[in-house]
Amino acid sequence: MQKIGFIGLGIMGGPMAANLVRAGYEVTGYARSSRSTERLMAAGAKPASSVAEAVAGADVVITMLPDSPEVNDVVLGDDGVLASAGPGLLLIDMSTIAPETSVAVALRAQETGARVLDAPVSGGEPGAIEGSLSIMVGGEPETFEEARPILEHLGKTIVHVGEHGAGQTVKAANQLMVAGIIELVSEAIVLLDASGVDGERGLEVLAGGLAGNRILDRKAASMLAREFKPGFRIDLHHKDMGIALATARSAGVSLPVTGVVAQLVASARAMGHGSLDHSALLSVVENLSGRDVH
Amino acid sequence: MQKIGFIGLGIMGGPMAANLVRAGYEVTGYARSSRSTERLMAAGAKPASSVAEAVAGADVVITMLPDSPEVNDVVLGDDGVLASAGPGLLLIDMSTIAPETSVAVALRAQETGARVLDAPVSGGEPGAIEGSLSIMVGGEPETFEEARPILEHLGKTIVHVGEHGAGQTVKAANQLMVAGIIELVSEAIVLLDASGVDGERGLEVLAGGLAGNRILDRKAASMLAREFKPGFRIDLHHKDMGIALATARSAGVSLPVTGVVAQLVASARAMGHGSLDHSALLSVVENLSGRDVH
Amino acid sequence: MQKIGFIGLGIMGGPMAANLVRAGYEVTGYARSSRSTERLMAAGAKPASSVAEAVAGADVVITMLPDSPEVNDVVLGDDGVLASAGPGLLLIDMSTIAPETSVAVALRAQETGARVLDAPVSGGEPGAIEGSLSIMVGGEPETFEEARPILEHLGKTIVHVGEHGAGQTVKAANQLMVAGIIELVSEAIVLLDASGVDGERGLEVLAGGLAGNRILDRKAASMLAREFKPGFRIDLHHKDMGIALATARSAGVSLPVTGVVAQLVASARAMGHGSLDHSALLSVVENLSGRDVH
Amino acid sequence: MQKIGFIGLGIMGGPMAANLVRAGYEVTGYARSSRSTERLMAAGAKPASSVAEAVAGADVVITMLPDSPEVNDVVLGDDGVLASAGPGLLLIDMSTIAPETSVAVALRAQETGARVLDAPVSGGEPGAIEGSLSIMVGGEPETFEEARPILEHLGKTIVHVGEHGAGQTVKAANQLMVAGIIELVSEAIVLLDASGVDGERGLEVLAGGLAGNRILDRKAASMLAREFKPGFRIDLHHKDMGIALATARSAGVSLPVTGVVAQLVASARAMGHGSLDHSALLSVVENLSGRDVH
Repeated sequence: MQKIGFIGLGIMGGPMAANLVRAGYEVTGYARSSRSTERLMAAGAKPASSVAEAVAGADVVITMLPDSPEVNDVVLGDDGVLASAGPGLLLIDMSTIAPETSVAVALRAQETGARVLDAPVSGGEPGAIEGSLSIMVGGEPETFEEARPILEHLGKTIVHVGEHGAGQTVKAANQLMVAGIIELVSEAIVLLDASGVDGERGLEVLAGGLAGNRILDRKAASMLAREFKPGFRIDLHHKDMGIALATARSAGVSLPVTGVVAQLVASARAMGHGSLDHSALLSVVENLSGRDVH
Repeated sequence: MQKIGFIGLGIMGGPMAANLVRAGYEVTGYARSSRSTERLMAAGAKPASSVAEAVAGADVVITMLPDSPEVNDVVLGDDGVLASAGPGLLLIDMSTIAPETSVAVALRAQETGARVLDAPVSGGEPGAIEGSLSIMVGGEPETFEEARPILEHLGKTIVHVGEHGAGQTVKAANQLMVAGIIELVSEAIVLLDASGVDGERGLEVLAGGLAGNRILDRKAASMLAREFKPGFRIDLHHKDMGIALATARSAGVSLPVTGVVAQLVASARAMGHGSLDHSALLSVVENLSGRDVH
Repeated sequence: MQKIGFIGLGIMGGPMAANLVRAGYEVTGYARSSRSTERLMAAGAKPASSVAEAVAGADVVITMLPDSPEVNDVVLGDDGVLASAGPGLLLIDMSTIAPETSVAVALRAQETGARVLDAPVSGGEPGAIEGSLSIMVGGEPETFEEARPILEHLGKTIVHVGEHGAGQTVKAANQLMVAGIIELVSEAIVLLDASGVDGERGLEVLAGGLAGNRILDRKAASMLAREFKPGFRIDLHHKDMGIALATARSAGVSLPVTGVVAQLVASARAMGHGSLDHSALLSVVENLSGRDVH
Repeated sequence: MQKIGFIGLGIMGGPMAANLVRAGYEVTGYARSSRSTERLMAAGAKPASSVAEAVAGADVVITMLPDSPEVNDVVLGDDGVLASAGPGLLLIDMSTIAPETSVAVALRAQETGARVLDAPVSGGEPGAIEGSLSIMVGGEPETFEEARPILEHLGKTIVHVGEHGAGQTVKAANQLMVAGIIELVSEAIVLLDASGVDGERGLEVLAGGLAGNRILDRKAASMLAREFKPGFRIDLHHKDMGIALATARSAGVSLPVTGVVAQLVASARAMGHGSLDHSALLSVVENLSGRDVH
């Protein structure tokens, strides 16, 4: 059975690593916060006190980190993954970062003989816990096949979408769609409310027709109740909208609606909702429409 | 069994009337085009040569017309439904029109002793044929209960959403969401394409995660193939975006993303795609991004 | 000297009619509010107690009314201008209304032998008082030449821009540009403020370069002081954005930025700023950015 | 008289350096392209074959470079300005770059004892030639006073707007306003054209009223003729919209219209107009409206 070093044990990484322990892998976990590491020890993993220690002797290293600077630091740093790895390491970076960072990491890894995949996920904390994430993977096809048995313990929809960085590009597309749909649901709710139409019944019909979508299925009730407990935080979605627009810029395309939605997510953050769920975009639309935020 | 007059036998109205014939109702149909009427006769309905003839002796009249002017004409005109109806008529207007027109029709109907519902639908030609439409109904609760047995032969999700006009308001919300989601899917496709990522695989992952929606489920394949056979025409969606923004104006709300999407639908029409499926919004995004329209 | 009937003596119409009195015309004025009429009497005009009385014996009638319904009522109504006019009337409608209403008025006027111009203005209360308005005129060239001597007492830039309705189309273009530029100035102010840059000095440089514009020249100081005394009210600009977008719809064009700006003006109104100056768009941008509205 | 090293002798830098020669300064110029350097020699400056040579013995160094990477390279590089400078250098960076790069440069300069100003300009090639630029300056007030006599040979409106980076922030505000106003003028032109209104007369009235602005004054004629010879290239404005949105992100504000305009500038570039004047935004609006690009 392969030995796995798992770096980054937060809301997502923690339960993902635990699923790998349950699947029988020997997992050594490292996180900045010792609390996160202890929680994983309880699940049966070995703790590491540094990145280097988590990587030592590992066949596979999985990183699940907040943003590009952390990935650059943990993977490319002096005491980082590539510096500490033995020959032939398989590195699966499941963080959501800029595609160009993933490409840069892959180029550096090749120089050290390591193989790398970018494999960001969608599905949130419930998906991480249930092992039902969607995983979009960029990199060499053979490397993907090698990683697939591990990924199957973490997700249900696991698709190899292209070369290095392609996983991140698909994740960027995912994030612009999710924010956009939340905004559209918010505009629908505000229109119904202000017109005196019962929101619950209105959204029930919308969910049954061509407008149906997973945001309505999962978040309509909490949005109607104006409960914005995360879930996925506005702050992180703000970061991801930045990645989406930077990716569009690199690709030379024009995304007008994403351009506006990004500013509305920025507004949610500016209004102080950064640590609320991304469905708090509803508050921005209510504010624009002069309606009390509940 | 109730006698039903059915006015407007187009792509939607034709199969809906046929479903009522099949359900055992005595249906008298009228359409401007005699061809449409003949097709319904083949299904077992009686033809009428005027609105008045379709209404004469009917317990229930259903109208399925393109826009407010036609509804005003057919329902409120000199030889129209209300002028020709016996006492106690139940009028179910299933057209998609401005909420305020529905309210005006209801006020005029009350003066003649008729009861009215606005009951626009979502689900398109397939839903009309299969009798699986979503139907959003505005009007008195008792009138809704009276109409429900008939509506159940036409749709699956049948919801009373509020007072007169409320059905139209929910339909407006439906249309802004549908256009918005088509635009977001288009922006995702263009981003993936321009980044060299396989569109089919990319959309497969998107459909499996939080970005999942019915447009992806039903239209991803045809959009990737750049096939825009309607379906629901850009011209009609352009009309409906006008209704959505006018409804927002009446309600005193601000819908920034809908404001942009409406201009992009207008662009699709200006580019000559008015008679294509609304998924042809993709062509606008490709055009903006300097990519050949296929 | 021609006899002029002047209908509509508000913030704009009042001083305009007074300028015509001063120029030596015999002016009979009518307004709904008797106060406005009295003020004009003080300037030397004759009062009328009805539209018909203002029109009786007039060679020229000028209307300056808030919106299309008022123009329809006053001009086309049973006791309206056309019904009361003698043969060969020259009607100059200086209201800001939909181009298609101006065209409809012109068609109706032709049937009665009257000649009509649409001649909306830009320049606000100061321009009305000083007689320095910009006047954009639609209609027959000969009619324009006939009206020009009168218009020269009201404005400085007086341009015949095309056929009936063309004046209103240019006014629609004017209004979309004015609202858009106010929004851009607002975004600049919020960006400078939030970055800790002195707004007054920043706007001084902006006014000196390619970004220079009349909003900066006239409103920068009051905007920086968050003083939004009208001037031109948000409510009226909201009406005008509706006209601009309806005109774009009729013309078959797509105006993406105007589409967003219209929703932001709607937001200013929804937030309760309808009776403030249109420069109160700044409050919407501050709100979106989580900054205290001053 | 002070000795000035001038680095970057392109469309802007070339005539600026020549103005300083004419003002009597001893100028040593350096540019990557030897052609640019030769042209300046003809004006009376001394040529340098490297950055170091241009800096050697200079009291003041002025840099006028395309973007942040070039500034980082030229100023902070191993053989760069700071490495080559004698004690007490005054560095005036007139490039348009991200405010945070200007702050970073200032911090590094302080370590070497140099004083720095960020002093981007507005006014284009004509302003550079005539010495009538608007110059927005960030940095210490004393340093500004020291630089003012030099800047007065380059511009007319010279304003100290705040601390290090403040000049760049004001420039970002300038660029978002300029692009936004060009877009609004374009939307007005397309609306007039499609409505059959004479564009020249229409814009003449607009220029005379509250919508008046410098884009109309300087570019209306060429835009109506669809002549897009630069001037200021779309490619550079695209870069600057990126800086504006990144500055908004750093400042924590939401700029919805700028968010859309940035995507329309991106569209102009994607359509292949990158080397045309920024007024080519008109082509994007025409394209969206299905009108032939001239």
